[in-house]
Amino acid sequence: MGFFDILDMLGTIAFAISGALMAIKREMDVFGIFIVAFVTALGGGILRDVFIGNTPVWWMGHFYVVHFISISVLLAILFRNRIYFLVKSLFIFDTIGLAIFTISGVQIGVSANLDPAVSVVLGIMTGCFGGVIRDILCNQIPIIFRKEIYALASLAGALCFIILYSLNFDKNISYISTIVLVVVIRVLAVRFSISLPTFTIKK
Amino acid sequence: MGFFDILDMLGTIAFAISGALMAIKREMDVFGIFIVAFVTALGGGILRDVFIGNTPVWWMGHFYVVHFISISVLLAILFRNRIYFLVKSLFIFDTIGLAIFTISGVQIGVSANLDPAVSVVLGIMTGCFGGVIRDILCNQIPIIFRKEIYALASLAGALCFIILYSLNFDKNISYISTIVLVVVIRVLAVRFSISLPTFTIKK
Amino acid sequence: MGFFDILDMLGTIAFAISGALMAIKREMDVFGIFIVAFVTALGGGILRDVFIGNTPVWWMGHFYVVHFISISVLLAILFRNRIYFLVKSLFIFDTIGLAIFTISGVQIGVSANLDPAVSVVLGIMTGCFGGVIRDILCNQIPIIFRKEIYALASLAGALCFIILYSLNFDKNISYISTIVLVVVIRVLAVRFSISLPTFTIKK
Repeated sequence: MGFFDILDMLGTIAFAISGALMAIKREMDVFGIFIVAFVTALGGGILRDVFIGNTPVWWMGHFYVVHFISISVLLAILFRNRIYFLVKSLFIFDTIGLAIFTISGVQIGVSANLDPAVSVVLGIMTGCFGGVIRDILCNQIPIIFRKEIYALASLAGALCFIILYSLNFDKNISYISTIVLVVVIRVLAVRFSISLPTFTIKK
Repeated sequence: MGFFDILDMLGTIAFAISGALMAIKREMDVFGIFIVAFVTALGGGILRDVFIGNTPVWWMGHFYVVHFISISVLLAILFRNRIYFLVKSLFIFDTIGLAIFTISGVQIGVSANLDPAVSVVLGIMTGCFGGVIRDILCNQIPIIFRKEIYALASLAGALCFIILYSLNFDKNISYISTIVLVVVIRVLAVRFSISLPTFTIKK
Repeated sequence: MGFFDILDMLGTIAFAISGALMAIKREMDVFGIFIVAFVTALGGGILRDVFIGNTPVWWMGHFYVVHFISISVLLAILFRNRIYFLVKSLFIFDTIGLAIFTISGVQIGVSANLDPAVSVVLGIMTGCFGGVIRDILCNQIPIIFRKEIYALASLAGALCFIILYSLNFDKNISYISTIVLVVVIRVLAVRFSISLPTFTIKK
């Protein structure tokens, strides 16, 4: 298991915990908590695979990922009263997960000979849409449509990776540059409360 | 048409009626009622087929099922003022439907040479996710994430069926044992108000 | 670019603007507005392609459509304070879009050798389900399940087109007859406030 597999695993766990915590807040039972954790971690990749016909979808051939999700659910339930602590300590892994998931989406698009622009969209989808499905299951308007610079960080990461890739940069350098870029954008956005513009309608 | 086809049909009708009733309560029009009935009965199977690449999805090759759904919609509209009676008399068919749909999901996973654990997940998906999509379309948090032992009965059924199957038990015996197990679990759960644990967060 | 491609483009833009306007009303940021515009315009086609296994889904091979959607988002943001004007002037393009999308769904079903009834369903799905996903993302019960004759116009168009097609009518005549029928039904429905029946439940 290489360095990036470990990052990928940490990202998956961070995503799953964020799903589990939201499900607990919605007073779901254990089954609901597990499903929401599952789709938060794997939903983006499922959409990506289904849209390009890459079936059976990824996790069906990598069932060990379900064990990571189960562990995440357990952690979320055990530490549910320390949410502030959890959310804070998850932030960095969640952002790394966003970067890694974005990269994996771009890579899969490129391997399937899709247009670079489509591959960038697949990257954003893989990184961001688990959270979108999580919010739909929890009956709220997706957070990333409203408050976060999340999607922008993912877009920047996807563009960075595909440019480095097409310039034949070393894979590891491309990975690390992308991860650093995504983390820097998100940290700065949160630090300085930067968000994308919204628009009001005059009555 | 064999015995299990009849059970399958009764299950489909029970699922469709439960969808139609919820749509009527939400004051949807005839089109909305039909669509919600449709996805409640077929949504789990659609997800399963899409996830494993089994396309065109099942109902496209078995269009007669749409007639059953139309009949269910008609029944739901006609008897909408006797919901208590409807819900009570549907309970047993709904549970049989859950068992049959779970079995069909497991079987399709096994035929596609998927991992047994993945097949179990496909069974639960086929049995339970029509109701999840129904609730999303009706703008509420999925009921099975909150109150029901539904998913657990489906899980138990899927495990039971795949164990009997891998032990080379007779197909009919496997079917009947699974159905009985699912019905017993759900009846006991409702009778004794058993549900999965939820967790509160201390403020 | 032929006459029908132009109608198709106008329909896509009308759909995308309707999505963008709803997202602006929900106070989404630019990313959310874009995504909702995207799924409103392309969601029906995505579902259709995924259900019949026509992957990668259509827009991945026709990425120029994303530029139309970007323009639509820009228009919606610029003219957001003239919603009444926008909605009124979009009505006709939106209805033409419904007709064209319905036709394209039916055609794809027929080319895939699916049952005519299934092709009709694919037509309705392509025409109507972008709006359904838009409403789910905006956390409301889909409008077409409650108020509109929208789906009925799409059904009539799909039936009209498949009948003319199976009678070997000229393609252009079939297109135009279908578009006229859909427009007439929707205009009459709005003019005379006709809607599908709903049902109340006695307490």
